[in-house]
Amino acid sequence: MYYTKAKYDRSDKMEMDLRDFPSGPLDIYRKKASFNWKEMVMFLEGEDMLALKQHVFRMLENDPIFARQPGEDMSTERMREVTFRRCKQLFRYDFLTRDDIMANPWRTVVLNDCLGMYDWSLGAKYFLNKGMFGATVANSGSQRHIQFVQDTEDMMTFGCFALTELSHGSNTRAMRTTAKYDPSTQEFVIHSPDFEAAKFWVGNLGKTATHAVVFAQLYTPDGACHGLHSFIVQVRDPKTLLAMPGVIVGDMGKKLGQNGLDNGFAVFHKVRIPRENMLNKTGDVTPEGHYVTPFKDPNKRFGASLGALSGGRVSISRMAVVNLKLAMTVAIRFSATRHQFGPKDDQEIPVIEYQLQQWRLIPYLAAVYALDYFSKSIFGNFVEFQIGMMMKDNSDRQAELGREIHAISCSIKPLGSWTAQRGIQECREACGGHGYLAMNRLGTIRDDNDPNCTYEGDNNVLLQQTSNYLLSQLHEHFVSWSGSKCFINHYGTAFPTYFLVSLSTSVPLAAYKWLVCFLLRESERRLAKEKASGKADFEARNNSQVFYCRSLSIVYIEHTVVQRFHDQTHDEDTPAGLRPVLKQLCALYSLWTLSNHMATLYQGGYFSGWEPADWIQQAILTLCSQLKDEAIALVDAVAPPDFILNSPIGNADGELYKNLWSTVMQGNKVLERPSWWAEFTSDKPVVGSLRPKL
Amino acid sequence: MYYTKAKYDRSDKMEMDLRDFPSGPLDIYRKKASFNWKEMVMFLEGEDMLALKQHVFRMLENDPIFARQPGEDMSTERMREVTFRRCKQLFRYDFLTRDDIMANPWRTVVLNDCLGMYDWSLGAKYFLNKGMFGATVANSGSQRHIQFVQDTEDMMTFGCFALTELSHGSNTRAMRTTAKYDPSTQEFVIHSPDFEAAKFWVGNLGKTATHAVVFAQLYTPDGACHGLHSFIVQVRDPKTLLAMPGVIVGDMGKKLGQNGLDNGFAVFHKVRIPRENMLNKTGDVTPEGHYVTPFKDPNKRFGASLGALSGGRVSISRMAVVNLKLAMTVAIRFSATRHQFGPKDDQEIPVIEYQLQQWRLIPYLAAVYALDYFSKSIFGNFVEFQIGMMMKDNSDRQAELGREIHAISCSIKPLGSWTAQRGIQECREACGGHGYLAMNRLGTIRDDNDPNCTYEGDNNVLLQQTSNYLLSQLHEHFVSWSGSKCFINHYGTAFPTYFLVSLSTSVPLAAYKWLVCFLLRESERRLAKEKASGKADFEARNNSQVFYCRSLSIVYIEHTVVQRFHDQTHDEDTPAGLRPVLKQLCALYSLWTLSNHMATLYQGGYFSGWEPADWIQQAILTLCSQLKDEAIALVDAVAPPDFILNSPIGNADGELYKNLWSTVMQGNKVLERPSWWAEFTSDKPVVGSLRPKL
Repeated sequence: MYYTKAKYDRSDKMEMDLRDFPSGPLDIYRKKASFNWKEMVMFLEGEDMLALKQHVFRMLENDPIFARQPGEDMSTERMREVTFRRCKQLFRYDFLTRDDIMANPWRTVVLNDCLGMYDWSLGAKYFLNKGMFGATVANSGSQRHIQFVQDTEDMMTFGCFALTELSHGSNTRAMRTTAKYDPSTQEFVIHSPDFEAAKFWVGNLGKTATHAVVFAQLYTPDGACHGLHSFIVQVRDPKTLLAMPGVIVGDMGKKLGQNGLDNGFAVFHKVRIPRENMLNKTGDVTPEGHYVTPFKDPNKRFGASLGALSGGRVSISRMAVVNLKLAMTVAIRFSATRHQFGPKDDQEIPVIEYQLQQWRLIPYLAAVYALDYFSKSIFGNFVEFQIGMMMKDNSDRQAELGREIHAISCSIKPLGSWTAQRGIQECREACGGHGYLAMNRLGTIRDDNDPNCTYEGDNNVLLQQTSNYLLSQLHEHFVSWSGSKCFINHYGTAFPTYFLVSLSTSVPLAAYKWLVCFLLRESERRLAKEKASGKADFEARNNSQVFYCRSLSIVYIEHTVVQRFHDQTHDEDTPAGLRPVLKQLCALYSLWTLSNHMATLYQGGYFSGWEPADWIQQAILTLCSQLKDEAIALVDAVAPPDFILNSPIGNADGELYKNLWSTVMQGNKVLERPSWWAEFTSDKPVVGSLRPKL
Repeated sequence: MYYTKAKYDRSDKMEMDLRDFPSGPLDIYRKKASFNWKEMVMFLEGEDMLALKQHVFRMLENDPIFARQPGEDMSTERMREVTFRRCKQLFRYDFLTRDDIMANPWRTVVLNDCLGMYDWSLGAKYFLNKGMFGATVANSGSQRHIQFVQDTEDMMTFGCFALTELSHGSNTRAMRTTAKYDPSTQEFVIHSPDFEAAKFWVGNLGKTATHAVVFAQLYTPDGACHGLHSFIVQVRDPKTLLAMPGVIVGDMGKKLGQNGLDNGFAVFHKVRIPRENMLNKTGDVTPEGHYVTPFKDPNKRFGASLGALSGGRVSISRMAVVNLKLAMTVAIRFSATRHQFGPKDDQEIPVIEYQLQQWRLIPYLAAVYALDYFSKSIFGNFVEFQIGMMMKDNSDRQAELGREIHAISCSIKPLGSWTAQRGIQECREACGGHGYLAMNRLGTIRDDNDPNCTYEGDNNVLLQQTSNYLLSQLHEHFVSWSGSKCFINHYGTAFPTYFLVSLSTSVPLAAYKWLVCFLLRESERRLAKEKASGKADFEARNNSQVFYCRSLSIVYIEHTVVQRFHDQTHDEDTPAGLRPVLKQLCALYSLWTLSNHMATLYQGGYFSGWEPADWIQQAILTLCSQLKDEAIALVDAVAPPDFILNSPIGNADGELYKNLWSTVMQGNKVLERPSWWAEFTSDKPVVGSLRPKL
């Protein structure tokens, strides 16, 4: 595991680092919690990571460059400017050196969490330069490209990653930008055949980037096309930020969110770059113009060159859970302090006391804990895999690990981003009108989370990768390193009613094992039926997605998440004082996700009669009601400081109305009459003066 | 019915009014449609309403005040200004006179549709003044208030409706603003006891309103509180737009959407208004200070005084379906022109050809047609009810109609707004990254739709009204004027497998009837169980919402929508050429919504075994696939002109990339280097200079 677990022998230091929350309306719920929220923080973060987080948060809060007001109204242009200035300041803070990261790669995730909790545009701008450009050049290039990496690390240049084109996103192979080698000058000629092949959606390219990793179809002088390769192309002059000759580069304009990040486009008109700018790890062109590659199969080479992307999906699923943490903090604190209706007119109760409000929110709080743990756990696997790659491990286990991580990353990104999307929307609605005020941030969180459903692979398209993998495994020995698949023999069992006495994860885990096997068999049958009716493979697969392969991928990843969370809650290393609440969260999350599949459980005969669905529903409601008193402490343990959360109704002091009112009153020109007041008071419209006279 | 049906004997005129779409990439799908889209338009709109729509759209398009660019970046301040100017221009157009509306009340809905399709802020600003202020004063006041109405109609003053307070929304009875009568000056003293009682969220109050209908607790000199009443309070001077003495009035700031509308707040410090400003239809205070009311029961008076709100929910459900029309137009046209992947690398197919894309979008297209028809149909009932009110109809039928409309409006608003919310989000995702560009408008549509889930009653809270009504009806004779309830004896039947041969609405209709009865019985049982365990009524009801009362309300309204749509598709007045596609839409919508309840159908024993779920799933996929070729014509029939839709990827010509590229290139400072370029090129950050030295 690459995140550090807490050291419980140093509880005095722990007390020192975590300050108590200010006393106020939330005290009542804080006192009701069965566990110590500080112990939870230490368990979730570990001492070192907590120190890093606190350091980053403190620096941002104390630096006026990062100052802001909730709900501030900024133009897109201004947002891009302040984000750039803040990004520049991050170079000065240099929160993580290369050594820090090598010692514990989880630190980059923690830093990204912190920056994202503050503003995802900032995190994206910083990491697209250092990670997507810098790391891609380092991983896909060779010794000759080191200076490019160094220059971006010193901000002498600024990098971006240019794959997507205007008319192609998901189908990466279909990119149409070309790189033709000219041996006479030993240069590549980068060219966009037309505007539909313009590089599009590239983060940092809009206003800032000087250099881009550009993916293009490589042509050698013999006319052969060798498929997609990557090249470093200078797009702007670092001295002036003006475009290089032959490059039309610009800003795509306003997006639904993340407007601090300047996404851009570029059209290349026969732009010449040195031969050395080709990133040559998976293939190179000799000075004379011959193509050389260590890969015999071009498909494998293509896969390896895009391999750098696979970590992206793991990281996106983490970003989604961070968003859900923010939204849950706002909505749960609001729900514990907003009073509405009550047994008598003058006896209003906090809205979290309502069954409906609990059911709307608390399962998403359980999802926060389930997905938070999963993102740590899968990151550990990913790092293990990367170390194997670096060590040039050629074992079967390493190969199997790679395939399984691919299958998991292609389904955890959809599960995580959709859970966050729906959860944030539920939080918005659960906060009523106040959730619709920009200053309370739920809109920004939702809008900034939204691209997680789309980039690095549309969720629905990615899920096909997972089901393809699972189907390919069907006839193999179904036991793997991760323990997630050793249950093929579960199929054919029925619902174990003797489990019904306890609210544990055993019931949903058994049901999930059955579901995976059932949907695997049904998906295979459906595919076979389509093929038997004469459909080609492409069409047969497309026609087996809805209700089959897609559902299969979803139950597979849900099972994997539940299984790992379940194991954690039973782990001896998990503090005894936290295990009860974690077990409740695990049971709730698993039953709640499982309840989406009840029709399938009935259809396949695993469930029958009244009891199973009723039991699941009652268990969900019971767990929601039990966890209601833990909810404030559970969000306290994952919430950032108020300055970072930046949502008056979500402040830790629980002074909902004071914070909201104070923020409203300090708004821009809040009490001023409008600048256009004379438009109202004079030149009154003649009613109907523009009505056609018939 | 108050919307005019098409007159089919004048098809020459019809041809004249509806221009053909420009030839282009969408031709192929347009030719595939089984029906004539112009016939569909005439059927949906009717000649008169179509003429009104076309007139409004034409005027807006030709008037530079309404000019705009897709994805324009405007400050909140600027949005409020342009919306005010446009609103002022609407007084000059005066699209509908009082006589126009009296002749056909549906015209106001059509006008609101048109303005909303352009920009909901504009429609809201206009109708909050004319409807929520003007009509409320007219309906709740008396002869002495006519001048207030006239003044807002001439824009001499500007009105708003102030009910909600900072700390109370759903619980309207708990409003804390007071109106104390002072007989010495014959005035009311309007007072906010503290900032938590500030009127909050009031549309138009932020910058524009001069007069407000303020709801306050009425106190007579004898100290008695007579509950909530409404008063006209002047908040700003119409000559200066400066606040009146004692009134703190301001702008709440940026919202998630509808930022052209200035929502505001007001705090009253002992503001004195004339006695005559009390809206006195349901209660009045004599000059001496005695309270007089025609109602004996204060609960009934309260209900009647809020009666003016019940039309709002019907109108909101209409607004939601209009939003879904806009989003579907964008997403379906995009899906028919975006090519991605294919059987071979060089043979990419439109994404609408994929089963997954069809399943994601086409059920929502069916929802557009189902909910569009329902909103017309329920509007007809509502007008009928209002006429009864005006005629002082005291019949049982009128009373029953009122209760049923209340039950329907409290559930159609949730169903409509949530369907739109989810549908728009699906459209956003289905358009991939391009859906995330502000210029393509899906974000604005989603954000502008979002408050439909919240205002005039939170969706989840409203659904309780519907289930309360249904439970109260349980032991009454279960047959009503609307024909929606005559099926209590359906309970106990089982799934009729002999229906399975045809893709009609019969199967889901029968299943829905069973579902309503089943959930009615189960909800009642649950309530009884809660009460038997000693819970008071308040708590027992709260604990019976999730999985019971809430689900009951949802299946009730879905059934009602499906039943009416089904009846329309079988109506002789429905043109024969349109009936087949409408029947398919009805079947798809009903099966798709029904599929959310399959677990309940199995649990209750209506479904058993493999077949029913499988049949429903295959039917959904078959219908999606059949409707795929109709989809473009179906959106053509509900789409506004390109200028109104304002989404390059949704243009009627289908030139996806040309429109998108052209809009990007004409963006603000798109190719310019950023104003802060020197911040990049000089004063380079010293990496780590702010890192703590340890």
